[in-house]
Amino acid sequence: MKKFLKTDEWSIIEEEFNPTRIRESESIFSLGNGRFGQRGFFEETYSSDSLPGSYVAGVSFLDRTKVGWWKNGYPHYFSRIPNAPNWCGLYVRLIDEEVDLAVWDVNKFERKLDMKAGILYRDFEITSPKGNKLRIHVEHINSMDNQNISAIKYSVTSINYEGKISIVPYLNSDIKHESSNFNDRMWDTLRAETNREYAYVWVQTKRRDTQVCCAFTYQFFKNSKEITTSPIKIEKEKLTGFSIGADVKPGERVTLIKYISIISSLYCDRSEIVENTISESKKAKNQGWEILINDHCKKWEEIWQTADVEIEGDLEAQQGIRFNIYQLNQSYRGDDPRLNIGPKGFTGEKYGGNTQWNTELCCVPYFLLSSSKETAKNLLLYRYNQLPKAIENATKLGFKDGAALYPMVTFYGEECHNEWEITFEEIHRNNIIAYAITQFAAMTGDDSFIAKYGLEMMIAICRFWAQRISFSSLKQKYVILGVTGPNEYENNVDNNWYTNYSCIQTLKDTILYINKVAQKYPEEYQRICKDTKFSQHETELWEKMIDGMYLPIDEKTNIFIQHDGYLDKELKTVDDIPKNELPINQHWSWDRILRSCYIKQSDVLLGIYLYYPHFNIDSIKSNFNFYEPRTLHESSLSPYVHSILAARIGDIDKAYNLLLHATRLDLDDYNNELSEGLHITSMPGSWLAIVQGLAGMQIENNMLSFKPTLPLKWNSYTFNLNYRKRVLKINIKKRLINIRLLEGDELNINIYNTVYSISKGKETCIEVD
Amino acid sequence: MKKFLKTDEWSIIEEEFNPTRIRESESIFSLGNGRFGQRGFFEETYSSDSLPGSYVAGVSFLDRTKVGWWKNGYPHYFSRIPNAPNWCGLYVRLIDEEVDLAVWDVNKFERKLDMKAGILYRDFEITSPKGNKLRIHVEHINSMDNQNISAIKYSVTSINYEGKISIVPYLNSDIKHESSNFNDRMWDTLRAETNREYAYVWVQTKRRDTQVCCAFTYQFFKNSKEITTSPIKIEKEKLTGFSIGADVKPGERVTLIKYISIISSLYCDRSEIVENTISESKKAKNQGWEILINDHCKKWEEIWQTADVEIEGDLEAQQGIRFNIYQLNQSYRGDDPRLNIGPKGFTGEKYGGNTQWNTELCCVPYFLLSSSKETAKNLLLYRYNQLPKAIENATKLGFKDGAALYPMVTFYGEECHNEWEITFEEIHRNNIIAYAITQFAAMTGDDSFIAKYGLEMMIAICRFWAQRISFSSLKQKYVILGVTGPNEYENNVDNNWYTNYSCIQTLKDTILYINKVAQKYPEEYQRICKDTKFSQHETELWEKMIDGMYLPIDEKTNIFIQHDGYLDKELKTVDDIPKNELPINQHWSWDRILRSCYIKQSDVLLGIYLYYPHFNIDSIKSNFNFYEPRTLHESSLSPYVHSILAARIGDIDKAYNLLLHATRLDLDDYNNELSEGLHITSMPGSWLAIVQGLAGMQIENNMLSFKPTLPLKWNSYTFNLNYRKRVLKINIKKRLINIRLLEGDELNINIYNTVYSISKGKETCIEVD
Repeated sequence: MKKFLKTDEWSIIEEEFNPTRIRESESIFSLGNGRFGQRGFFEETYSSDSLPGSYVAGVSFLDRTKVGWWKNGYPHYFSRIPNAPNWCGLYVRLIDEEVDLAVWDVNKFERKLDMKAGILYRDFEITSPKGNKLRIHVEHINSMDNQNISAIKYSVTSINYEGKISIVPYLNSDIKHESSNFNDRMWDTLRAETNREYAYVWVQTKRRDTQVCCAFTYQFFKNSKEITTSPIKIEKEKLTGFSIGADVKPGERVTLIKYISIISSLYCDRSEIVENTISESKKAKNQGWEILINDHCKKWEEIWQTADVEIEGDLEAQQGIRFNIYQLNQSYRGDDPRLNIGPKGFTGEKYGGNTQWNTELCCVPYFLLSSSKETAKNLLLYRYNQLPKAIENATKLGFKDGAALYPMVTFYGEECHNEWEITFEEIHRNNIIAYAITQFAAMTGDDSFIAKYGLEMMIAICRFWAQRISFSSLKQKYVILGVTGPNEYENNVDNNWYTNYSCIQTLKDTILYINKVAQKYPEEYQRICKDTKFSQHETELWEKMIDGMYLPIDEKTNIFIQHDGYLDKELKTVDDIPKNELPINQHWSWDRILRSCYIKQSDVLLGIYLYYPHFNIDSIKSNFNFYEPRTLHESSLSPYVHSILAARIGDIDKAYNLLLHATRLDLDDYNNELSEGLHITSMPGSWLAIVQGLAGMQIENNMLSFKPTLPLKWNSYTFNLNYRKRVLKINIKKRLINIRLLEGDELNINIYNTVYSISKGKETCIEVD
Repeated sequence: MKKFLKTDEWSIIEEEFNPTRIRESESIFSLGNGRFGQRGFFEETYSSDSLPGSYVAGVSFLDRTKVGWWKNGYPHYFSRIPNAPNWCGLYVRLIDEEVDLAVWDVNKFERKLDMKAGILYRDFEITSPKGNKLRIHVEHINSMDNQNISAIKYSVTSINYEGKISIVPYLNSDIKHESSNFNDRMWDTLRAETNREYAYVWVQTKRRDTQVCCAFTYQFFKNSKEITTSPIKIEKEKLTGFSIGADVKPGERVTLIKYISIISSLYCDRSEIVENTISESKKAKNQGWEILINDHCKKWEEIWQTADVEIEGDLEAQQGIRFNIYQLNQSYRGDDPRLNIGPKGFTGEKYGGNTQWNTELCCVPYFLLSSSKETAKNLLLYRYNQLPKAIENATKLGFKDGAALYPMVTFYGEECHNEWEITFEEIHRNNIIAYAITQFAAMTGDDSFIAKYGLEMMIAICRFWAQRISFSSLKQKYVILGVTGPNEYENNVDNNWYTNYSCIQTLKDTILYINKVAQKYPEEYQRICKDTKFSQHETELWEKMIDGMYLPIDEKTNIFIQHDGYLDKELKTVDDIPKNELPINQHWSWDRILRSCYIKQSDVLLGIYLYYPHFNIDSIKSNFNFYEPRTLHESSLSPYVHSILAARIGDIDKAYNLLLHATRLDLDDYNNELSEGLHITSMPGSWLAIVQGLAGMQIENNMLSFKPTLPLKWNSYTFNLNYRKRVLKINIKKRLINIRLLEGDELNINIYNTVYSISKGKETCIEVD
């Protein structure tokens, strides 16, 4: 854990220039707008180590799989988000020197991300090797209002320099890819052109599946006066731009505003993409900086109105939760079922930008509870549209009759992971999709989605399990052999408790909804039976599996056994590991991790969280107290789940500490991996930890319920909640909960086992002990 | 299984040209001489698919590891035998056509490997696209007498062609590597030169660790008359040679003899390598073809005198066992402790030519029993010299205090494998090295090797186990978690029976020899204690582990349980698999293989074979009858072990079938992988299956013993045996065993529990029931 940012309510502030933390800061100061985004790399030249990543949503590259030893079933290709052309770049040149913070002395430096307004600022004073001093001020947005637009305002003030300052804004499609498998290039540049007033680069992925065009126009000012003299045009094979300069004396300033438009072929016909991109950048220039900023800020204001969580009395938590909400909302806007959320969003290339089960585990519940239901629906439709691919994935592994295995990582639906213990064995991922579908019905109160889309997925998933689960003659039980659970620090184990348990639930839920849909939506049911060749007979085996599933409990300790053999390990706790060996995934060899008792994220506790109403409080406590001290939280999906359970069993201190971990995972770089990007798809976990953990929100007997608690340090916290067409504002203070119904009809809410009727207009104030 | 070769006592004969079996035949017709070798690719141009591989012993290339996902502990480099410059090549040209069997019609074709003499012949008649007909005869040897020399005699007879025939012998260092990780080249060509009478190419691996020089001289004949006119010299950057021609009429013949010398920097100072290589090829030419062939054949005669196994009544087995003996002896000569035996010898690139545990399991016992003890000793010294690297390997994985983990695959001693389930977990490999050391003492009767070298390795191995074995509080037993056994169709299992059992034996044997060496070689003992910081206290924990090791038996069936959880699987047999799904490793996805009960090679039966005297016959039978029907023999190390056990439990039919499998594994391509090369290091298994299996050879109570049996089909079989400075010739007929002591002192031999004294000069003839 490394603290290097100033704590602030609404801003992320870096107060000094630290060349050893370049990549970390680039991750933190990433900007996005749902359509594209880039890491917070310096706009001007930086000649030392850095990861200048720019990414466009929905653009993927199929790279050839390369493994040590090929195993049958491996995918031949894996999808990766390619680093897009650099649209932010500019050079700042004096007569014979160029600004480069890796070379110049940095005298003052401040970088600030204003999360309320969505503006990134940079202010610094530098001295060149020849002694020329400059002061630079930068403002940067990726417009949330016009999602085709990014804009940069770059001002250079001379402190002691007299002479010409040139600013050279450019677009560059000659891009290296951090983790390219063969040092290959992923783009072909179709055209790169500089015209009188605009420049553009037009690129296509080498497999020709997507095009991107970037264009820009600009304004140039000396002091406050716009200068419109002809610039020098720059036009190379892969780089276009202008060189614009003015003579300055000490105290004088030049300013460049770069109006950039980025459009991909997902949103524009290829024949019109160049024209449209140029036209968008021109329009932005015509609007001008002020209006652009204004419209952008308004969007953020709207978002914050519903998305904000206010915490009184804890600046660290306040900053952390806002950072997570900010980053998630600029990564994904929920308006396009072709898009999903890359684990690093637009902040890095790790995991190839592919969709993972994080989406259903962590993002779908967040969006369900905090946004319009369309957002979550689009995420589920993404999976529905990929159902044929999921069936294909299962077929590749020898399954048949419409069985589906959703991929571990994917872009277009085909499995793209290539480690056998994950690709073939981390199959619990199938169940979270069924879970998310049932959550959609529970939170929205609308089961028509299941009739129209969800049930087909659920049946296909159950068909997979019906073939995958086997019967142990020895145990006289159904068993699931050779799996990897969510705790990826165990591979190829038998009877992973989470997998077995979530299978039972998936089979049960599917049978439940088969009957419900048959009754309530008979036409949809007929269609499903016809399309999927489903017959009720299939559920007979499912019922047997539900009844006969092996789920061992340790009699002595009353805990669910993580998997067969877990209790043969030396049962140490995380405290036994020397601090300098953490995170163990960066210090221990893989075999050592595997045979240790240490847990990346706890399978059992995750299962208890997801299916919470099934377990009694003693059992939850026993399991929490056994597994939590052995859990390393080296998965970003881990701390928030543990925080929620800790809150529910009344361990508020622990809940608070784990919440802080979840909330500031990236800000404080808990696992020493911030340089690779942010954990975008785990970020909503911190919101869930507040709402489902501290506030104790659940749906109990079909009624919304809360059991609010307050960390010692906090005075109060406030959040909005979407639930079955209502929007509620919840404010929790010590022994007091205020509820306001902002939208929707009156509803009953259970607070600590007392039911209150909440209706619009009046604030319900409830005292709790 | 594919039969495509003619069965013959002493030869391997291919009677037709089949372009779909090019790579398979290239593997079969490989030639080697211990220093270098090449696959049986055509000397002349062949423009279709082929693997023209040429390899030089002791030459390796360190290639960068490339895996899907990096795990801590993976080696950064892996060693690979690089395809060497092609020294066999020649072009055959008519006026405007070039011989190319991929293009020309092949009218007749025969390829024959005379294993007795070690000569490869090829005879074929071909018609060019223009109708020109030629008859070609080729003879090829890699001299076993002068190990620097390869020689080719290439005769072309015109059938209907009138005009010039040119033969263009060349050396080519512009080589592709079948399995290069990055399509990289592995060689730099230092010099390529053609002189008046010789040509050479001099190359160096890109990492500069090894050099190879190839040179050749030639003779050219028209009909029987040598022609010495000046040829056209060919000298390109990476290709050197001559073009030599003569005008022929139908019925006339031209012949080229290419005298090639190949020398690596292992055997020659780099400053003299070019000179020496040229000089060797000149010397060969001066000797001339007849003498070269004669000396070469004599060497083979010597080898066969002791190595041959004669089988009367079964041509298939006879051919197979000779093929295996032939191939092994041309791959490894036992004269250099820097060399080991690549799993494919000089017949392919798979497994990178690296040393594997096959050497100790299969090759060391064979050489111990069939050759001078120096051969086996050199193989063990190879491991002794790499002990520091084995300690380094263990250190990388977090072990300390001189613990050693011998590599899974290696060239110079560092681990070069990069699959975690093998690299980190197939650690039983350590034990076979200790086993081979104790076998050396048992078979030679000489324990000074252990005092000088072996004990240090054994202590280092035990130190590894002392740290790797853990204690299960639940079981109150020592357990070994997270391993892969010899049955690689199970990964990351707990308490693999073979691993646990062989650990006990290794610990026991080491304690035994510690005491023996302390007593018998006190000075060596002092040296070892000092060098390794060994203290007798260390054995206290070892003793506890020996006594407390977990080794479960299934009460119902009386079988040793392969590993924890094995009996939870659906216990089918191999007969249940559709034939078109075999071998499963080419048809099933990896997870399906893993969770099936199917066994690549049986761990338990291997353990019973290695530690045979520890088990009673009922237990052996139960285990054999349980595990053998579930074993796929998709490891080349499998069938011979099962054959030996089958013979010992009296199932001679089964023993015979498995012997035939082991013996003709490559000739009949049982596992559809012949194209990749031959299973050189498993080949001695078939010899062991005859000697240890059918003849029932064992050491019982420190005495050589036999329990001979005879397959129904056989009339008799005869083999030689080395045992404690004696050479015995054993002939087994129906109910009759003849033993002659060829060398060494009188000794007692136990035949079916009766002891006979065998002395030199007289043949001992024993009737058995």
